[in-house]
Amino acid sequence: MEVLIVGSGHMARGIGTRLVAGGHQVRIAARNHDAARTLAAELDGDATGEPIGRLGAASVVVLALPYPATRMVAEQLAGELVGRVLVDIANPVNIGTFDDLVTPPGVSAAEQVAKAVPGAKVVKAFNTTFAANLTAGGPLDVFIAGDDETACDQVAALTADGGMRPILVGGLRHAYTLESFQLLHMKVQDQIGGNYTTSLELDRRQ
Amino acid sequence: MEVLIVGSGHMARGIGTRLVAGGHQVRIAARNHDAARTLAAELDGDATGEPIGRLGAASVVVLALPYPATRMVAEQLAGELVGRVLVDIANPVNIGTFDDLVTPPGVSAAEQVAKAVPGAKVVKAFNTTFAANLTAGGPLDVFIAGDDETACDQVAALTADGGMRPILVGGLRHAYTLESFQLLHMKVQDQIGGNYTTSLELDRRQ
Repeated sequence: MEVLIVGSGHMARGIGTRLVAGGHQVRIAARNHDAARTLAAELDGDATGEPIGRLGAASVVVLALPYPATRMVAEQLAGELVGRVLVDIANPVNIGTFDDLVTPPGVSAAEQVAKAVPGAKVVKAFNTTFAANLTAGGPLDVFIAGDDETACDQVAALTADGGMRPILVGGLRHAYTLESFQLLHMKVQDQIGGNYTTSLELDRRQ
Repeated sequence: MEVLIVGSGHMARGIGTRLVAGGHQVRIAARNHDAARTLAAELDGDATGEPIGRLGAASVVVLALPYPATRMVAEQLAGELVGRVLVDIANPVNIGTFDDLVTPPGVSAAEQVAKAVPGAKVVKAFNTTFAANLTAGGPLDVFIAGDDETACDQVAALTADGGMRPILVGGLRHAYTLESFQLLHMKVQDQIGGNYTTSLELDRRQ
């Protein structure tokens, strides 16, 4: 699958690492073309870097950006995004309180993105996985929510190809729960000695 | 600590098992006195069984009941509960859809219980732990939310004494997130082959 990752930060690197490991064609797009090219060169595989703008043959576009940049970029690319799978990974955490989200009660960042690009198939994924664990490889649960089942299945396949376990939780409205829980996951890092290296997992009992 | 567990089902057994293992004095109270006595006898330790009604010297009361029985019993015991720690474990899952909660949007079962017993120190805990994993022993993360820090610390201590890892996620309003996430945890059991034996964990990366 050809996947365009928008962003050149830690999450872009982590998701890019997994997609390349899964044998997929990865394009990194960033406002800073050099940063995109540098990251692409550092990923194994034949990843390429480019400026943000053209979506080309990418069937899946991952917004590996913080909130609210996700919304703004989605709006900018709205016309081109129609018919494509759009993966939102954002956590709209209120960094002032670190105890709230900045989105309105009950409304997820993912649903806001979906509203901004009505023709795109928006899927929430990778918001519960810290970048370090994505980049490091190894088992990882990826919670996926979306209204388009085929789109969810595509993201699940990309996830499984990258050595992770996809967990499909249902419609996009459940993105609110994923975002809310991840706030809790983030805020307890000090308490559990995690330093953003824990993973949210549904382990199987032995 | 003297803990009164209201209920004689699987969750009462699981929580009772852990509390007894932690060396605490456990009283099982149930509408069916025989069921309470039978469960108490089956728990190791000096657990006792009794009918619902008297709270006595219990500093912590666990409502090991399904929603909405939690609310009704809390209302019945309201006068006696003032000043005590009241643990709500309920998951208000809509069993018709298995994709929604039956509580109003944004309002947790735990907050409803707190409203019903204004003088009690309500703590949400054990709603993300399946009964089988409690009863089986072994490592388990217990997510805890509550507005009274001392009450949360008491529940955390009980949890740790029973061989589990307490994770304090903040105020009682976060109970909504715990309840919402547990719905997702329940609904994906078929998908991940769990049969209600998975645990929600924040694993540490190696």
